[in-house]
Amino acid sequence: MRATPSSRATDSVTMPELRKDPLIGRWVIIATERAKRPIDFVANHEAPLPPEDCPFCRGSEGKTRKEILSLRADRTPSTNHDWSVRVMPNFNPILQIEGNLNRRAKGMFDVMDGVGAHEVIVETHDHIGNLADVPVEHIHAALHAATLRINDLEQDPRFRYALWFKNYGEAAGAGRIPHARSQLIALPVTPKRVKEELVGARQYFEDKERCVVCDIVLQEREAKVRVVYETAHMMAFCPFAARFPFEVWLVPKRHACDFGRMQPNELQDLAAALKELLVRLKLVLEDPPYNYLLHTAPFRRAGGKIGHWKTLEQDFHWHIELIPRLTRVAGFEWGTGFYINPTPPEESAKYLREAGT
Amino acid sequence: MRATPSSRATDSVTMPELRKDPLIGRWVIIATERAKRPIDFVANHEAPLPPEDCPFCRGSEGKTRKEILSLRADRTPSTNHDWSVRVMPNFNPILQIEGNLNRRAKGMFDVMDGVGAHEVIVETHDHIGNLADVPVEHIHAALHAATLRINDLEQDPRFRYALWFKNYGEAAGAGRIPHARSQLIALPVTPKRVKEELVGARQYFEDKERCVVCDIVLQEREAKVRVVYETAHMMAFCPFAARFPFEVWLVPKRHACDFGRMQPNELQDLAAALKELLVRLKLVLEDPPYNYLLHTAPFRRAGGKIGHWKTLEQDFHWHIELIPRLTRVAGFEWGTGFYINPTPPEESAKYLREAGT
Repeated sequence: MRATPSSRATDSVTMPELRKDPLIGRWVIIATERAKRPIDFVANHEAPLPPEDCPFCRGSEGKTRKEILSLRADRTPSTNHDWSVRVMPNFNPILQIEGNLNRRAKGMFDVMDGVGAHEVIVETHDHIGNLADVPVEHIHAALHAATLRINDLEQDPRFRYALWFKNYGEAAGAGRIPHARSQLIALPVTPKRVKEELVGARQYFEDKERCVVCDIVLQEREAKVRVVYETAHMMAFCPFAARFPFEVWLVPKRHACDFGRMQPNELQDLAAALKELLVRLKLVLEDPPYNYLLHTAPFRRAGGKIGHWKTLEQDFHWHIELIPRLTRVAGFEWGTGFYINPTPPEESAKYLREAGT
Repeated sequence: MRATPSSRATDSVTMPELRKDPLIGRWVIIATERAKRPIDFVANHEAPLPPEDCPFCRGSEGKTRKEILSLRADRTPSTNHDWSVRVMPNFNPILQIEGNLNRRAKGMFDVMDGVGAHEVIVETHDHIGNLADVPVEHIHAALHAATLRINDLEQDPRFRYALWFKNYGEAAGAGRIPHARSQLIALPVTPKRVKEELVGARQYFEDKERCVVCDIVLQEREAKVRVVYETAHMMAFCPFAARFPFEVWLVPKRHACDFGRMQPNELQDLAAALKELLVRLKLVLEDPPYNYLLHTAPFRRAGGKIGHWKTLEQDFHWHIELIPRLTRVAGFEWGTGFYINPTPPEESAKYLREAGT
């Protein structure tokens, strides 16, 4: 290694920063807490932690950071070791919870302090890796915990958006601990993809006075070929312009913009629908790595552009996007936002549909 | 494997299609020529082809599809085996060259036939994997070939954009043949990321009557901390809001919107600047996989929204974006367009700068 600078660059940052791309307005977290030297990238496969060292199992509560919330399988709060689901701050948060945003310019560039919440939702007290194998009562409690945390973080005037997502399997970024969990990140900005959906849904509504996702649900039900299954409240389908093989969206059939405001019976139905999807995925693709991610309405209590969100209730429709990590994304996709999908969604849906019969 | 549908889905496609996402307007290629069943995803590591089977080495011309163009190291055309650089159609094209676009609706969705060009530019006649190790004269000829092909494809009224990019290393999607080459794809649509840059650059110009990338070049030269090096015509720097560790942009210092219209001395300088960058990258990161990708002006002869492009010359600035494939992108980034970069660009630039001393 020739490259071992003796001192840090003079303009270098010492705390996480949010930086805005001057061409396209995309925010990036420069997460200095995790700063890496070249040598750190050379061999980055780490062995999974042995089960006895897992900090997320019942009995190892002392190995995590201070608990924020814990629930029993019946979704009542737990104050002792009798928990099913537990929430705590991430051990290596990508954003720091303390401080103000300190929005400022660096010459022509826009920057703010990397302030935000980064929490872990442990989805069961047993050492189970894939949420597909977790009892539906625990999934239900974990979803309930997510809504409680999202609604709590909405009270913080610094935050605009709550990002709830799951990484399963090493290829999907799950890290060294094979214990089912999701992550929740509260951000002071709305992510670019979500903004694009808000704008797209708004334009569609202005044109037609209908929600675009409601229209998709109706059309998919008629076409049948991309639907995987329906439950009382949810529909799972492979989207028409799917970017990836076996990409699946899970959407509420009743129009709703806000995941955090789900009714109790809808939450229960979602737990069953999510488990069903993950079980089929595991069966058809032989336990693949996957990510899923919630797209819900931005916080409407937050400061800033409230005018943008005032008609949100009618034109935005929350949903979960699931992507199995099967193909390697090439340079083409990175640099263009233009995807190549080798498997038509009609084929993906057919396999997933038949896995349930 | 329970999931083995006996017949294809009724709505399934038999040729590549371009499909538009109804929410955010992103086009996706559904590349049925490469259609995959679930079993195909389970074990997808293939051994590299042995050198004697390489179709891109001199003497194996018969193993590729029909040659489109070949050049000697002095960039004169070659009509025999004495070539340095050779261009041919991709063996597994993601789009098909024949046919009309056949734009149409499928219910509420927009779709067109997957028509486009997909070419391979073999960058040297020797069995060398990394372009960093290829003689600069061959790199020069390969760049020249890229400009010739782009300018030729621009004549086809079906196409709007030429995407020139490189995948090096298995993790970057290079496939089974470790022989230096880049790819060129001509598309009937402008990719989303490029459109966003066109819009962003236009807005900046309308506001300030200056090019945003020209402003960045001036500011980076003053700040110094993110510049890697300069040549006579090019500057290499790590962008302020870099998405990835060691992400580098290579930009012409003289304002120009069109890669295909470079002057001969600029092309020669770019060959040297690109080699320099790849050599430093190889040194600092121990021969990492990488992708780079050209962002240049859309075809202005193409049909469609010519009005959008008429002031392109003054506000768009072509550049090459290089991304070493060091970190695994998690679900977070996929679903949000919001990136976490563990290495401040000032640090990346410092390592790459010092590798040249």
